[in-house]
Amino acid sequence: MSEPPKPVRIGLLGRGNVGGAFAELLAERADAVEAATGRRPEISGVLTREDGDFGAILERSDLIVELMGGIDPARDFVLDAMRAGRPVVTANKQLLAQHGDELFAVAREAGVQLRFEAAVAAVIPIVRTIQESFGVTEISKVFGIVNGTTNFILSEMAASGASYEDVLAQAQDLGYAEADPSDDVSGADAAAKMAILARLAFHTPVTLAEVSYEGIEAIQPDDLAYAKELGLSLKLLGVAERREGGISVRVFPCFLYRGHPLAPIEGPFNAVMVEAPAINEVTMSGPGAGGLQTASAVLGDVVSILAGDAPVHETRVELPIVADVTSSFYLYLEVADQPGVLARVATVLGDNEVSVKSVVQRGLGDEARLVMVVHECLESRFATAVEALGRLGDLRAPPRSIHVIEEQF
Amino acid sequence: MSEPPKPVRIGLLGRGNVGGAFAELLAERADAVEAATGRRPEISGVLTREDGDFGAILERSDLIVELMGGIDPARDFVLDAMRAGRPVVTANKQLLAQHGDELFAVAREAGVQLRFEAAVAAVIPIVRTIQESFGVTEISKVFGIVNGTTNFILSEMAASGASYEDVLAQAQDLGYAEADPSDDVSGADAAAKMAILARLAFHTPVTLAEVSYEGIEAIQPDDLAYAKELGLSLKLLGVAERREGGISVRVFPCFLYRGHPLAPIEGPFNAVMVEAPAINEVTMSGPGAGGLQTASAVLGDVVSILAGDAPVHETRVELPIVADVTSSFYLYLEVADQPGVLARVATVLGDNEVSVKSVVQRGLGDEARLVMVVHECLESRFATAVEALGRLGDLRAPPRSIHVIEEQF
Repeated sequence: MSEPPKPVRIGLLGRGNVGGAFAELLAERADAVEAATGRRPEISGVLTREDGDFGAILERSDLIVELMGGIDPARDFVLDAMRAGRPVVTANKQLLAQHGDELFAVAREAGVQLRFEAAVAAVIPIVRTIQESFGVTEISKVFGIVNGTTNFILSEMAASGASYEDVLAQAQDLGYAEADPSDDVSGADAAAKMAILARLAFHTPVTLAEVSYEGIEAIQPDDLAYAKELGLSLKLLGVAERREGGISVRVFPCFLYRGHPLAPIEGPFNAVMVEAPAINEVTMSGPGAGGLQTASAVLGDVVSILAGDAPVHETRVELPIVADVTSSFYLYLEVADQPGVLARVATVLGDNEVSVKSVVQRGLGDEARLVMVVHECLESRFATAVEALGRLGDLRAPPRSIHVIEEQF
Repeated sequence: MSEPPKPVRIGLLGRGNVGGAFAELLAERADAVEAATGRRPEISGVLTREDGDFGAILERSDLIVELMGGIDPARDFVLDAMRAGRPVVTANKQLLAQHGDELFAVAREAGVQLRFEAAVAAVIPIVRTIQESFGVTEISKVFGIVNGTTNFILSEMAASGASYEDVLAQAQDLGYAEADPSDDVSGADAAAKMAILARLAFHTPVTLAEVSYEGIEAIQPDDLAYAKELGLSLKLLGVAERREGGISVRVFPCFLYRGHPLAPIEGPFNAVMVEAPAINEVTMSGPGAGGLQTASAVLGDVVSILAGDAPVHETRVELPIVADVTSSFYLYLEVADQPGVLARVATVLGDNEVSVKSVVQRGLGDEARLVMVVHECLESRFATAVEALGRLGDLRAPPRSIHVIEEQF
């Protein structure tokens, strides 16, 4: 009689919200993991910031799950584990976004798997889809809503007309936003996720520092109200796309037309679209956070590692970041309500080859609001036009502008 | 100096729409496949119904791609290939739905991979997601729009008010429906896909014969018009779910409330949702057909086979099909426009413990239309109530009913 297969010993780094949920889920699904892989998983040790010895845990583990977050000491632990021949599963988006080159190089040298589905959009299997289903597809664009906190805030602002500050406070009460929300609302969190997705989609080294981002702190209830009249809904989008000469990887608030697949995504949800000539477009949506959801993604990675080999991400080309790309824009102007203002504004736009798609003008006493959407143009050209508008004597406040994705359907 | 790795020799069975697109795509992406897997793919032989010798092609192939469709001779070829140690990629939903047990058993015995992403929803990676990302997740429900032809027809009927027959003719002109559309419009095609998804999601043997289905041939423009008033949109849904005592796997036309994630899916698109306590819900949508899209899914599977091992689907439990389940319904009655009709109808429903959620009544001369949505109840009870309604003297035509999914959001 042969011995029963040995259990898989999993060393767990971090036992916060996600780490705790993972330990519970692993125990609950141990039978299913054994049925699927032939080996029963067990936690061989837990390292927290207060307690545990990494070297000792590594020694008695077959696989390391890193859920402590942050760069130090997570980076050293992950690198050491891989160098010691242990595959690693991590949910650490900052680590991947900032040190991807180093991590993947070490994984390849050591011949171990490094999996990180939970680092982007929790349980939505976007990492696996890009790496495996579309691993040899010429992806042209990956974009979507990759931060649930900001999507909740924008949905609530649109629904209630409340201010950014009030809705942020409400999101904090509900646990959708942290006490210090700056990482989410500034777009920095989404930028880290887009750095990871861009790297995978385009097989090119992208780091967080190369991703430009803009947050939602400056969004006004007015913008949302006028946008509604124009049939638009506002999302904080992460966009990674091929552009003439290289790629563009950015995060910015953006209006979407009704009918756009991302327009109906409301509340603390995430959704990501992948576009390629050979697939048209595929959209994936679901909860973008939550301890249990993130732990589920981690467990899926653990099972994949036990189930078989998979190649480690490798850079194939070095694509430059293209700084100036084309976009459509929403433009909000507070102007004096006098004859000729619209003509002067339109002239400035026309002189800069910025073409108007739609306009809403409304009088408010001796002022007026001029809200328009302009067709796609080079962003530098639009910026020049906005600067020139700012110099018009007619404006009562600096112009406000937000990206727009034109309707496609 | 070591020899360069040998190419991967791919034997292609079938060279129709998808087979031709696959051969082209493979040539176009050969560099990318080589970069990803270290081996360059080449077609070692093509078998068509008219031409080619299967044994000779098998002999000189490392991997077989079956895109001929149908059961015979595809089944023998796929079984022979696996018995000869060759992994197989297929897009053949009928083969999987009707002979899944045999195919997976032979794959396991032979120790080879059998992949079939393209068999369900083309390039939407639903098979991989269920098998790999959620392979040890306790999935409670998989459902969605898995037939693009019928979704196009229903979208057009709703938008234009045209009859089923007129829109079907239009779909045939556009190439969205075949000359003989019966497999699509009857729900049989969707049933085969749901048999596959149910098997994978619940790790239980489900065959096509166990999937009950209902098509869209009887849908009237009237139903869609009234539904619009009730805020509903009509989809042909495939639903596989755990129910008390087992599972239910079915295909039926179904109204969805506004806000349901599947409600905005229009035209020849597919979308599938997966629900589980640990993930809430994940929705994936995209083009459900098309030669190039299907070929892309096939190529993704080929690359996964070259990239590493993966376990073959295995039954873990035997779950019975539950025949009588609960559902909400839309009910359309043509009645005499006389006092007391609504009361008599309501009494029949109440006597059968069927509870009304909303009603639209409209007079048309001496007739009236009574359109209602009833709350969730056992389908057998609803059927009894509808039978009893049919016996009322007030009805001018047999009652019509359609499933409804109540709002969740």
